[in-house]
Amino acid sequence: MAKEVVNREENYSLWYNNLVTKAELAENSAVRGCMVIRPYGYAIWEKMQSYLDQMFKETGHQNAYFPLFIPKSFLSREAEHVEGFAKECAVVTHHRLMNDPNGSGVVVDPEAKLEEELVVRPTSETIIWNTYKNWIKSYRDLPILCNQWANVVRWEMRTRLFLRTAEFLWQEGHTAHATREEAMEECERMVNVYADFARRYMALPVVVGPKTACERFAGAVETLCIEAMMQDGKALQAGTSHFLGQNFAKAFDVQYATKEGGLEYVWATSWGVSTRLMGALIMAHSDNNGLVLPPKLAPIQAVMVPIYKGAEDLAEVVAHMETIKRELTALGISVKIDDRDNVRSGFKFAEWELKGVPVRLAIGRRDMAAGMVEVARRDTLEKTSVAREGIAAYIQNLLDEIQENIYQKALKFREEHTYKVDTWEEFKEKIEEGGFLLCHWDGTSETEQRIKEETKATIRCIPTDSFVVEEEGTCIYSGKPSHRRVIFARSY
Amino acid sequence: MAKEVVNREENYSLWYNNLVTKAELAENSAVRGCMVIRPYGYAIWEKMQSYLDQMFKETGHQNAYFPLFIPKSFLSREAEHVEGFAKECAVVTHHRLMNDPNGSGVVVDPEAKLEEELVVRPTSETIIWNTYKNWIKSYRDLPILCNQWANVVRWEMRTRLFLRTAEFLWQEGHTAHATREEAMEECERMVNVYADFARRYMALPVVVGPKTACERFAGAVETLCIEAMMQDGKALQAGTSHFLGQNFAKAFDVQYATKEGGLEYVWATSWGVSTRLMGALIMAHSDNNGLVLPPKLAPIQAVMVPIYKGAEDLAEVVAHMETIKRELTALGISVKIDDRDNVRSGFKFAEWELKGVPVRLAIGRRDMAAGMVEVARRDTLEKTSVAREGIAAYIQNLLDEIQENIYQKALKFREEHTYKVDTWEEFKEKIEEGGFLLCHWDGTSETEQRIKEETKATIRCIPTDSFVVEEEGTCIYSGKPSHRRVIFARSY
Repeated sequence: MAKEVVNREENYSLWYNNLVTKAELAENSAVRGCMVIRPYGYAIWEKMQSYLDQMFKETGHQNAYFPLFIPKSFLSREAEHVEGFAKECAVVTHHRLMNDPNGSGVVVDPEAKLEEELVVRPTSETIIWNTYKNWIKSYRDLPILCNQWANVVRWEMRTRLFLRTAEFLWQEGHTAHATREEAMEECERMVNVYADFARRYMALPVVVGPKTACERFAGAVETLCIEAMMQDGKALQAGTSHFLGQNFAKAFDVQYATKEGGLEYVWATSWGVSTRLMGALIMAHSDNNGLVLPPKLAPIQAVMVPIYKGAEDLAEVVAHMETIKRELTALGISVKIDDRDNVRSGFKFAEWELKGVPVRLAIGRRDMAAGMVEVARRDTLEKTSVAREGIAAYIQNLLDEIQENIYQKALKFREEHTYKVDTWEEFKEKIEEGGFLLCHWDGTSETEQRIKEETKATIRCIPTDSFVVEEEGTCIYSGKPSHRRVIFARSY
Repeated sequence: MAKEVVNREENYSLWYNNLVTKAELAENSAVRGCMVIRPYGYAIWEKMQSYLDQMFKETGHQNAYFPLFIPKSFLSREAEHVEGFAKECAVVTHHRLMNDPNGSGVVVDPEAKLEEELVVRPTSETIIWNTYKNWIKSYRDLPILCNQWANVVRWEMRTRLFLRTAEFLWQEGHTAHATREEAMEECERMVNVYADFARRYMALPVVVGPKTACERFAGAVETLCIEAMMQDGKALQAGTSHFLGQNFAKAFDVQYATKEGGLEYVWATSWGVSTRLMGALIMAHSDNNGLVLPPKLAPIQAVMVPIYKGAEDLAEVVAHMETIKRELTALGISVKIDDRDNVRSGFKFAEWELKGVPVRLAIGRRDMAAGMVEVARRDTLEKTSVAREGIAAYIQNLLDEIQENIYQKALKFREEHTYKVDTWEEFKEKIEEGGFLLCHWDGTSETEQRIKEETKATIRCIPTDSFVVEEEGTCIYSGKPSHRRVIFARSY
């Protein structure tokens, strides 16, 4: 038997953890809260990176790289920003180790204390705006459209693989604009790039909309986000795009000479997605047999398992498979032939199901003689016998079909777990079951805070492209007037 | 005039610095020793990454990601390793900042001291071998062929953009093998991948060979390297591949069950190249007008500058250029049309020369009428008038020619600055001029050390694929017998 995964219905949290570790996506390291991303997990992340990077470049962005360290004083320049990040910073205080004079290994050299402590970046607005100050003199230097792929550190107390780790990988876009309108447009453009990516590649039906003031990024004027629903009905914030107004320009004194000869502060955005997307991908589609990967992000899109007796048989079937592999590879499909002779076919089937490979082809001598191939799809677990002739085109279509089916399944799940709720009693009951609750809210942070304290539910966003309900009503909590519904949910 | 670069003959070091900053490749940041890699510089690094990554994958490697932080105690496990890295480590001691009770901004929270300090990775052998311990049980788990693209920190006291920075970007391969032979083969395979990359893409004629014991990586049994010659005659180590023996397997107790049922320690290699390659690229080929980029690594391979009078003229020429651009793009050539109307053509010419764009096309209305294009190549600064008809194929060939010419020029330079030296008097004289000195050496670290103290020259490598001179002779310093010549040089 391949490694067993606990049932999702039994223990959702352990199920998730089993998937991550047993499918060899990631594991905890010896360093508290830091994970090791294993090759199979990293291959998925690389695919995400490559599609996103292309989308960023198509929208005019360039990559750059800024320092890992941020002088402590920089963080303090923007009041809300430091408030948001100071409590979870890894702080570098020394730059040298030495042999312990008492002979007990190496110790920090007290002589090598830094004049000013350095924080390992939790996000890079401060160091980047300090740099932009030197790049921006006139309107001709604008816009600046930079992105960086980097690691960041936020010293979270309770960590979970991919979802919340002390160190994580991400990209952070940081743009500078001459006008408020242009910055706001950029902010919207990028949240839509994220939504498009989530839907087309991750098969994740996300909701787009602004956060409320309570849930905004520390230092932002507006935060737009994409929110996804996991299979336990909880929400997961999968990406954010911030309109930073002139906050960082003012904190770092970045002004530009306008066309008309004036001097104005620069407008900013920042936007990011992280390895957290891996968590969303896993939790949204997988089942009790293991991962279900959308074909567009699967490192192996089709696996072939030979059915054989003895070495001669194996060699013959594998040779036959090589001819199919060539045809598939020519269509850009990534294929693996699992020719191991030390495990049985059933073990292989279970292992590739666990690893979420979208399509499995099994072939024995009988199939060869009949000119047939047994094709199993991971999403529905259905098996079909397909003619060898024309198999490559068949698989190519099947992969598209699977991609679409996974999306539709997740969309259906979301629709089925989204409810209009109009009374506080119903809210308290429904929120226990999970799902998105579309409710009227009076628009105050106070009400939002109270609801959170009483039910652990937060406003995930004010939806602008799905579930948009603009209508008069009354706040489920305060009874005050409201003009539209927002999405409440518990979240990761 | 575009930004001026100081003459290389006048001040080589300032010339280099001018190139890096004025061509907007990188700049110093507010954090001591850490650089900002600007978009134009990062685009070159991305091209390097993409070719290298492909070469790594073609040789069977997979990417993964390991933690940024290393527990202090891990470093000490391998005696030579800690000796080599302890003195230049960024050390994280706390995980939180707080508001200063005295009201002077944020300070380190003394309550948030880590139980064990964490070192920001200077290299990842220790954390990786601690992880491999859990991955390797039997010979069936071997080999493990992982690579990671990451940032590392070594607290250098004297830093220089790209060449020596506190934080730098690199890749580090870490492989685990069942036998010494297999590990040694891997070590050689990867140094040859580096040599191939340097020659084919960077147009850098490198010498391959092992380091002497003095110059080995801290913890390695053998270090193979590629060494390049810069235009001041100094050597630059551009990549290293280490055979680590069983040192790290023993330090982290990584053993595997052999096919025969025994238990053996695992054999290891590690290999890396870094953003230092950017420094090598710049210093090897550039001239007093600016960068000279090999076409294969140039972010912009051809730039088009319209020659015009007035807006109407400009629009017409640019429209004509768009047709050429389409043809070039179809051949995979990256093109930029510089249609700025606020700077003159001469300024543009100088700017693109500074930025090292391999080919420049200038077109005015007269050229359009005559069906001609003025083509200037960056490497030789030659201009030719070429027919518009067939221009794309012409440029494609020209780019190949430039790539080859840059390599041949660097090779010729290296040959002309490599000398067989047989007496200590001559050595002391010659080393002042720069270049590679092929000398007999008695094979002792003592002699090597003395030569270094007296002349600042080190043995760059014992060449194995160029300059191989196996012959009897006597050590230039000690007069003792020697069987082959090695390469001495001053280096970066």
